Amino acid sequence: MGHKIGVADTTFARVDMAQVVKKAIDDSLELVEVERYAVPGIKDLPVAAKKLLQEYQCDIVLALGMPGDKPIDKTCAHEASQGLIQAQLMTNKHIIEVFIYLDEARTDSELKEIVQNRVYYHTTNALALLKGKEELSDRVGKGIRQGKGDVGGVE
Amino acid sequence: MGHKIGVADTTFARVDMAQVVKKAIDDSLELVEVERYAVPGIKDLPVAAKKLLQEYQCDIVLALGMPGDKPIDKTCAHEASQGLIQAQLMTNKHIIEVFIYLDEARTDSELKEIVQNRVYYHTTNALALLKGKEELSDRVGKGIRQGKGDVGGVE
Amino acid sequence: MGHKIGVADTTFARVDMAQVVKKAIDDSLELVEVERYAVPGIKDLPVAAKKLLQEYQCDIVLALGMPGDKPIDKTCAHEASQGLIQAQLMTNKHIIEVFIYLDEARTDSELKEIVQNRVYYHTTNALALLKGKEELSDRVGKGIRQGKGDVGGVE
Amino acid sequence: MGHKIGVADTTFARVDMAQVVKKAIDDSLELVEVERYAVPGIKDLPVAAKKLLQEYQCDIVLALGMPGDKPIDKTCAHEASQGLIQAQLMTNKHIIEVFIYLDEARTDSELKEIVQNRVYYHTTNALALLKGKEELSDRVGKGIRQGKGDVGGVE
Amino acid sequence: MGHKIGVADTTFARVDMAQVVKKAIDDSLELVEVERYAVPGIKDLPVAAKKLLQEYQCDIVLALGMPGDKPIDKTCAHEASQGLIQAQLMTNKHIIEVFIYLDEARTDSELKEIVQNRVYYHTTNALALLKGKEELSDRVGKGIRQGKGDVGGVE
Repeated sequence: MGHKIGVADTTFARVDMAQVVKKAIDDSLELVEVERYAVPGIKDLPVAAKKLLQEYQCDIVLALGMPGDKPIDKTCAHEASQGLIQAQLMTNKHIIEVFIYLDEARTDSELKEIVQNRVYYHTTNALALLKGKEELSDRVGKGIRQGKGDVGGVE
Repeated sequence: MGHKIGVADTTFARVDMAQVVKKAIDDSLELVEVERYAVPGIKDLPVAAKKLLQEYQCDIVLALGMPGDKPIDKTCAHEASQGLIQAQLMTNKHIIEVFIYLDEARTDSELKEIVQNRVYYHTTNALALLKGKEELSDRVGKGIRQGKGDVGGVE
Repeated sequence: MGHKIGVADTTFARVDMAQVVKKAIDDSLELVEVERYAVPGIKDLPVAAKKLLQEYQCDIVLALGMPGDKPIDKTCAHEASQGLIQAQLMTNKHIIEVFIYLDEARTDSELKEIVQNRVYYHTTNALALLKGKEELSDRVGKGIRQGKGDVGGVE
Repeated sequence: MGHKIGVADTTFARVDMAQVVKKAIDDSLELVEVERYAVPGIKDLPVAAKKLLQEYQCDIVLALGMPGDKPIDKTCAHEASQGLIQAQLMTNKHIIEVFIYLDEARTDSELKEIVQNRVYYHTTNALALLKGKEELSDRVGKGIRQGKGDVGGVE
Repeated sequence: MGHKIGVADTTFARVDMAQVVKKAIDDSLELVEVERYAVPGIKDLPVAAKKLLQEYQCDIVLALGMPGDKPIDKTCAHEASQGLIQAQLMTNKHIIEVFIYLDEARTDSELKEIVQNRVYYHTTNALALLKGKEELSDRVGKGIRQGKGDVGGVE
């Protein structure tokens, strides 16, 4: 039987990030089931992700969020990240955090571009982790980035 | 049988936030029971919320707080938020944090307005989450805000 | 049988804060037993408070501390606060944190005054919480402060 | 039978702090056994301390460390402190954190002096805590410092 | 039977850090098995390290990461470090964090040099910890650094 990917996202975000997850999964031709969870903001993501793993039998979760551009938003994102790491340690399963900060982009179209790139490639990462802990081994140390261009490795 | 919503609030807050919860529930015409818990300050909210979930059989909790405007108050709010996330991970239930910072408003009437808006719409969010994990799905990625106007989504 | 209040304090503090707890309890005419625990500094308070709750059968704990005025002292207080919240979540009991920062006062007599006020009213809060989770309900949203004058509520 | 004190220290530190622990114990004429654990840096101390308490039957642990003077070193110390508090809450035993920051002293001899004073008096504190939770009671509220002169109490 | 060392690293890193681990183990002539785990970024390391300890029977883990040079990268590294400490406390086993910040070096060749030095000597530390808790005792208090020259001890 195939794997199940949980996708948790927020009404706070300004872009429908889950659509990009769907496209990346379709493109991969992998047979994975998607289970969705919608919450108000990023601080609601940790428990949603943990519930997807424990109550909805997901094998991995993508936690999609778009923190605002004020200092308080950075603090919220920090708290959410700590919670997402804690949830992983409590379940021994991966939760891939996919956050795009509203101040990473200057225009709406740049924002959409970063979203499409980062969400797409982190979905690819999640699919790879489902195959095994060494699936990403040949990409290690290559300075790979999601959302903007890769930095590259040092030979 | 109907659901039970826990409402935890503080003597530190300058506005009776729980009244707005009551109004939002009344307006919704949902049959939900309310269980209240009053504590001195926001750092007392995490354990109060956890007790509402575990000892008073609440299905979800609204944690209402109004942090002050000094740096130490921001630190307190940060610690409270971390505790609220931890409490959710320990119970696998949602606690919706509804904090209004005293320095978000310049006047008392502006403060009341933000309170009424944010508490009202977060109560609506809590009622939605009680109905299921995809109840908020059609609002995802729309840049929705509580307390002030929505930012809107990016098409 | 009466309740038991734990009182944890530090040799680092510059004022005997536990004396004020004693006075507040005496004034209340409540029959509560006091169990004391003395530690070097505020970072030793979380485990002391947890032991009072779990090994000495206290129903609630007052954690008394007086952080210094240097940046490192703020960090210590932050860590202690996080630990106190965690201890509450592990025991489902309240620990009322009563910290007075050395830089809140300009003179020794002002320091003593803040201590007397804040410790006194937080002891009152602890006594109220022992009576039940809604005992403080009629004081909610009133902008109540401990240590200095109340801010007041917004009508 | 006597007590057992765990002593965890680091290769990162610039002074042999455990020697001072030994001297303080000798001077005390107490019969306590010492169990040692050596780790690379302060971030390795939390698990070492927890293992001393749980796998080597120590009754209390002294966690000795000497954080560097760069911002990243402060962050490391903060993380280590959080871990030490967590380890205490998981074991219900005390871990006395004895950190000396490299930038507390201007010269090597001043550094040694602070080490000797702080480690010595914190060992004394640990020995007191082994005797009971009220052993330090008569020193409470006296503004006692380890490492530099006491600040004193406010009458 | 020999020990098993877990090695977790990231596709984000710009240098193949695991190669240096391999060289250090080869040079040591110790018979240890290596179990690898590749993840996207440093925030994925805590759960990977915990899984190596709990599901792949590793005795110790090296968590290799290379945080970026922006403020958000520092925050990520902080969160990862907290998670790594938590994972150790949950398993009672060591995870040696080996992070090289991209802004520690001005050139690619300097970066490689720091990586080779720090990863090499932390692998040596891990091998020492596998032999016992006092194996590093004679190096304590010597101001030992990994990545750049030692600072030295104070006599």
